[in-house]
Amino acid sequence: MFRLIPSGTVTSVPGFLAGAVSTGIKGKKEPDLAILYSPTPCRAAAVFTTSRIKSAPVVLSRKRLAQIKARAIVVNSGCANACTGEQGLADAAEMAKLTAAKLGIPREEVLVASTGVIGKPLPMERIRDGIGKISLAPDKGHELCQAMMTTDTRPKEIALEVNAGESRFTLGGVAKGAGMISPDLATMLCFVATDAVVKIDFLEQSLKKAAEASFNMLSIDAETSPSDCVFLLASGEAKNPEIGSRNGKIFQDALTELCTCLAKSIARDGEGATRLIEVTVEGAANQADARRAAKTIVGSPLVKAAVFGSDPNWGRVAAALGRSGAAVTEQRLDLYLNDVCVMKQGLPAPFDQEQMRLSLARAESVLIKARLNLGEGRATAWGCDLSPEYVRINSEYMT
Amino acid sequence: MFRLIPSGTVTSVPGFLAGAVSTGIKGKKEPDLAILYSPTPCRAAAVFTTSRIKSAPVVLSRKRLAQIKARAIVVNSGCANACTGEQGLADAAEMAKLTAAKLGIPREEVLVASTGVIGKPLPMERIRDGIGKISLAPDKGHELCQAMMTTDTRPKEIALEVNAGESRFTLGGVAKGAGMISPDLATMLCFVATDAVVKIDFLEQSLKKAAEASFNMLSIDAETSPSDCVFLLASGEAKNPEIGSRNGKIFQDALTELCTCLAKSIARDGEGATRLIEVTVEGAANQADARRAAKTIVGSPLVKAAVFGSDPNWGRVAAALGRSGAAVTEQRLDLYLNDVCVMKQGLPAPFDQEQMRLSLARAESVLIKARLNLGEGRATAWGCDLSPEYVRINSEYMT
Repeated sequence: MFRLIPSGTVTSVPGFLAGAVSTGIKGKKEPDLAILYSPTPCRAAAVFTTSRIKSAPVVLSRKRLAQIKARAIVVNSGCANACTGEQGLADAAEMAKLTAAKLGIPREEVLVASTGVIGKPLPMERIRDGIGKISLAPDKGHELCQAMMTTDTRPKEIALEVNAGESRFTLGGVAKGAGMISPDLATMLCFVATDAVVKIDFLEQSLKKAAEASFNMLSIDAETSPSDCVFLLASGEAKNPEIGSRNGKIFQDALTELCTCLAKSIARDGEGATRLIEVTVEGAANQADARRAAKTIVGSPLVKAAVFGSDPNWGRVAAALGRSGAAVTEQRLDLYLNDVCVMKQGLPAPFDQEQMRLSLARAESVLIKARLNLGEGRATAWGCDLSPEYVRINSEYMT
Repeated sequence: MFRLIPSGTVTSVPGFLAGAVSTGIKGKKEPDLAILYSPTPCRAAAVFTTSRIKSAPVVLSRKRLAQIKARAIVVNSGCANACTGEQGLADAAEMAKLTAAKLGIPREEVLVASTGVIGKPLPMERIRDGIGKISLAPDKGHELCQAMMTTDTRPKEIALEVNAGESRFTLGGVAKGAGMISPDLATMLCFVATDAVVKIDFLEQSLKKAAEASFNMLSIDAETSPSDCVFLLASGEAKNPEIGSRNGKIFQDALTELCTCLAKSIARDGEGATRLIEVTVEGAANQADARRAAKTIVGSPLVKAAVFGSDPNWGRVAAALGRSGAAVTEQRLDLYLNDVCVMKQGLPAPFDQEQMRLSLARAESVLIKARLNLGEGRATAWGCDLSPEYVRINSEYMT
């Protein structure tokens, strides 16, 4: 029903344009300021950080989203424009105004996102100069994605072509994030575009659902940032029969798949990470317990350090589960590492330690599965291992 | 009203004896099995881990504590006897029985504690042999403390002499813990002894209160262990007028002071730590918010990594505060690093970055203060920085 577009990105969606420049905010030559643009006005949905401290762009974009229509996103990296007070709000508003003027659209149709150091004012001269220099084209999604990166080592982008009988449309997305990642109802920066015609209520509801199953099951370091946001723009250019809750299953599935792929790319590129960790909890008393248990295990620094060292120390998985708050009956608990049973009904199961160590050392992803055997709750969470490099990166971030 | 006893430990309390041996469970020559003993039966109180997965010694000692009387604690390190099923419970019971036989007391008066790797059976031959070899003396508290250590680099012990008119008594304690430390209502291993005469209700209540203000405000890595417990034994040998809620203030103050000192020693000796972090939150909307905010900041891996790098990146303190769940009004927020104001009413406050970096680099402790200016809630939490060494230790723990 849907297929991956090779080297796809957000501008793989027909009609969307992007452009980026380097302004020196990040202090390097890489692009750090970009615009995503749809000449056709889009229906827009978003989820935002749940932090009580919100960046200026988040405050502004939340307000703009109230009118559920947008045509452009302007984004910079290197400075989060958070904890910057009234001046920060004025700067975010000016970014939107300059972008609107450049594109000849109302300023209310521009969303703003910033990511980087907290507590520094935006260098507005660089931003003003940069916005003037951006040139837009339908093949520049990759550059936009580059411009969002901070400690990311790899761009995160994807596009899916959906073909469901009379509904044919494209979904594309870009995301950034490598640290301060433990979204709670919202997440890092992620922009998703589609040309599908989608009812606005369903658009909002399906984004919430997709984020819940993907970005909200992601933890790199249990931190939630004040800048987190996911934007979804739907231009309607595919002119398919309008999608709503009645006929929306395929749209929902494709959107969840797209968000899950981006979430896994973020986990794999966690600061200092050497491998992806995927934790599945089955048989929990309920869904909430399954989610809580999976997120606690994937976020445990001791589990993460053990994975880094290829150490099959499954006692730490049991300890994380025990403190997660989920109902656990020790005598019913089964644990698996890369599909090998290491604990059965609460007791150590014999396994070849040396073999396991080798298998962990070779793996690009480590799969941890906990079967609680209490009910029907099931959830998967993604994260990464914890290496000395994470500490190095974060001990000299500001300098 | 109370003074520190130089080089004090748990056996600085008159009447208490201890002894330790090396059985090789830890695979080294250090002591790893020990007994604490009071010939006089003691009133006993305890707090235990809130983990849903509890070690066998925790299950056993909880049962024993129901009779609120105890005379001995037997403890080993190197193996936690957790996730070991029925065999684990039988092994813990045998440890108690052997200790009781050696001391000639009922087995119901022996508490048991184990700490170390999870999911391995206790090597009972070593335990049996070891218990026979322990010799008890009133000056062996230090050896007991050594025998509890796992990744600890320093013993944690203290004793206070209390003189409150007609009430004269001593309080002494030992603790262990360097990783898997984020107690929730209970904590690591800690044994406190006193010769004071204390009503049992008040004994239980004052231990809960002291643990709440000390061990429960401690986070090394946000992990809670299945083995956590704090035991308090009161022999009554000081023959003071019985202490209860009416006349218990000085006892409560001394006990809280003792537990706080031990909690800070644990934080300072966090796995791989180079310095202590003390976070005070003032002016929170209420007490619960203050505790939540202080614990979130002290547990933030990004704050911890910044402290390791002497990086005055206070934006991370603001970000941790924002996600803590505590009510925060950005415009009222003040932040201090080592008593220097870095954020005032939600805006960056100018400070000498180079000076601050030097002051952080030289400091043995880093003080972080957040004034929320919303109410009367106040709390202090303790933790440590995050170094590459933490990762190294925990990536090869089992091997």
